[in-house]
Amino acid sequence: MAAQGQVITCKAAIAWEPNKPLVIEDVQVAPPQAGEVRIKILFTALCHTDAYTWSGKDPEGLFPCILGHEAAGIVESVGEGVTEVQPGDHVIPCYQAECRECKFCKSGKTNLCGKVRAATGVGVMMNDRKSRFSINGTSIYHFMGTSTFSQYTVVHDVSVAKIDPKAPLEKVCLLGCGVPTGLGAVWNTAKVESGSIVAIFGLGTVGLAVAEGAKTAGASRIIGIDIDSKKFERAKNFGVTEFVNPKEHEKPIQQVIVDLTDGGVDYSFECIGNVSIMRAALECCHKGWGTSVIVGVAASGQEISTRPFQLVTGRVWKGTAFGGFKSRSQVPWLVDKYMKKEIKVDEYITHNLTFGEINKAFELMHEGSCLRCVLKMDA
Amino acid sequence: MAAQGQVITCKAAIAWEPNKPLVIEDVQVAPPQAGEVRIKILFTALCHTDAYTWSGKDPEGLFPCILGHEAAGIVESVGEGVTEVQPGDHVIPCYQAECRECKFCKSGKTNLCGKVRAATGVGVMMNDRKSRFSINGTSIYHFMGTSTFSQYTVVHDVSVAKIDPKAPLEKVCLLGCGVPTGLGAVWNTAKVESGSIVAIFGLGTVGLAVAEGAKTAGASRIIGIDIDSKKFERAKNFGVTEFVNPKEHEKPIQQVIVDLTDGGVDYSFECIGNVSIMRAALECCHKGWGTSVIVGVAASGQEISTRPFQLVTGRVWKGTAFGGFKSRSQVPWLVDKYMKKEIKVDEYITHNLTFGEINKAFELMHEGSCLRCVLKMDA
Repeated sequence: MAAQGQVITCKAAIAWEPNKPLVIEDVQVAPPQAGEVRIKILFTALCHTDAYTWSGKDPEGLFPCILGHEAAGIVESVGEGVTEVQPGDHVIPCYQAECRECKFCKSGKTNLCGKVRAATGVGVMMNDRKSRFSINGTSIYHFMGTSTFSQYTVVHDVSVAKIDPKAPLEKVCLLGCGVPTGLGAVWNTAKVESGSIVAIFGLGTVGLAVAEGAKTAGASRIIGIDIDSKKFERAKNFGVTEFVNPKEHEKPIQQVIVDLTDGGVDYSFECIGNVSIMRAALECCHKGWGTSVIVGVAASGQEISTRPFQLVTGRVWKGTAFGGFKSRSQVPWLVDKYMKKEIKVDEYITHNLTFGEINKAFELMHEGSCLRCVLKMDA
Repeated sequence: MAAQGQVITCKAAIAWEPNKPLVIEDVQVAPPQAGEVRIKILFTALCHTDAYTWSGKDPEGLFPCILGHEAAGIVESVGEGVTEVQPGDHVIPCYQAECRECKFCKSGKTNLCGKVRAATGVGVMMNDRKSRFSINGTSIYHFMGTSTFSQYTVVHDVSVAKIDPKAPLEKVCLLGCGVPTGLGAVWNTAKVESGSIVAIFGLGTVGLAVAEGAKTAGASRIIGIDIDSKKFERAKNFGVTEFVNPKEHEKPIQQVIVDLTDGGVDYSFECIGNVSIMRAALECCHKGWGTSVIVGVAASGQEISTRPFQLVTGRVWKGTAFGGFKSRSQVPWLVDKYMKKEIKVDEYITHNLTFGEINKAFELMHEGSCLRCVLKMDA
């Protein structure tokens, strides 16, 4: 703990500009200020949101920055006033904060805490509106309030979930984003009931977590929809009972699903981020009660549309962020569920690489065989 | 009851072709077949859906037809197998049926009974897929399964709500459409809680019924939005506490409402049928939980759109038809509430005319001062 209060120099993967390979180099990580926590990241996974911002398509993306938001580590030091974690605690940094004090947290209706968003949205920390990362004096932006592609990162205390120290960090790092997003979309946002018919568009990590959540909720049919038929065999292990490849049908996919289900599904989930599929997901829902949840993140500027008649006749259109889970309160609960073998995590990890191979990991994301690639940080 | 089993010749307002004045003339009304009820209509009101189909803009509109769907009357005779009503019963014909047997009725999740829709959607009766109306052998289409612009009409038994015979038919005829639609949008679809902030777009009959419903539900602020500022004074009587005229603001109306409400409303209701306003209604909702309900009926072919981010950040987009009320079960309950002075009805009736003045009544609908015009049928 000798570094407490000192700048730490460590390796980080810097995104100097959009769409250029990340560069692993020495970064200076300033000590945590009031209300901040410095974390030694041990394992990080990659998620499509990292790739989206890295690609330069995200108009809110700031460069140079340190990406990464699905990780696990150990608290190295804490700033003034931080009481809920201390050095040595095992933690998952959470891009969705939970302050328990703001209008959002107190509402009881949402997990979208607003406390630090004004800072994390522009790549800085609340306290002084500055970054804690720099390279020889050049400031490097934070990303999503987490920046886990660094051996050390600084986050707001309201964004740190303290977890069971017995949990394997190389696994539970996944509970920082994709898996909870899918499970929570089912459990918290849609509230799928036993016996329901469910359609899932996109069978990546989030879609498979939706399948797992739906299976746990007792869904009677779980229809997986993907343009890559190779994904079906794996999807069965997560609970998908039927598979539809839109490429094998001439009719619009919503009509195919309606025909398969005597009028439509009870719940549908869009786990891709494609606005046309979001429409299909709504329109394959049953008249009178079908609920569609947007889970995928669409590219900036894109819009969803449908005929209002779809809603007037009883369909409901919703969305979810981090599956509606309250991060600090519920990520530890998810870790416990994993430890009790009530939810899968290991099964989503298809690749393990070292931090130095991060650019290769980004390439892997485009392969259908890859779900999550976990990087070991102490390269 | 001498006419039972016989054709009745009476006056009806015939829409021979789109956008041409209705013609009141003699129509032959066949006796009710199995599962049908012939009703002597005593009072009918006009609703914008009548005007929409009459205008020719409804691609599903069929001519010649007899419009009208907000009325009250007395059962004249019943067909074979009809057990729940008998001649002399006071009734409200309901464009939304309730059979209590179909998938929809049994779901417990919707009021959108599907039993007779395949027939009412194409202007005929289920039993023989024909109309009961004719003029000298020319068949005249039914409309919405009700066709109340006739002194006698024939409807399916699943579309007849039997009501308290003490209720004044010249008032409770309004409980056939607009008033329940607004009340139910609040009570059944949105489920507005005490203390909520509510925005209502459009202060016609349905919008005012939304206001009344929201007031009953304990809403703390009820913001009425209309481009006709003259409507505000009247709206106060129905519960509207604040008024916004979009014409008096340069900012988009959703931004005006968000600014007025520290981030947006808890519930919004679109009661116009304008797809741009439907978008504004969604986007003026509070992040995290705001729910927008589409109540108005948009013109055919029009689409709603928004950025998916609006839903991913917690807003919910819904719609309602007949306010989610189960017609046969709940219209009598609404009549009882009116008799106990728990809901307003009289206050929505701004004009009373005779059946012979029906074309004048259609003209009145375009005037801001008109809410509902009730026609007395025995001209």
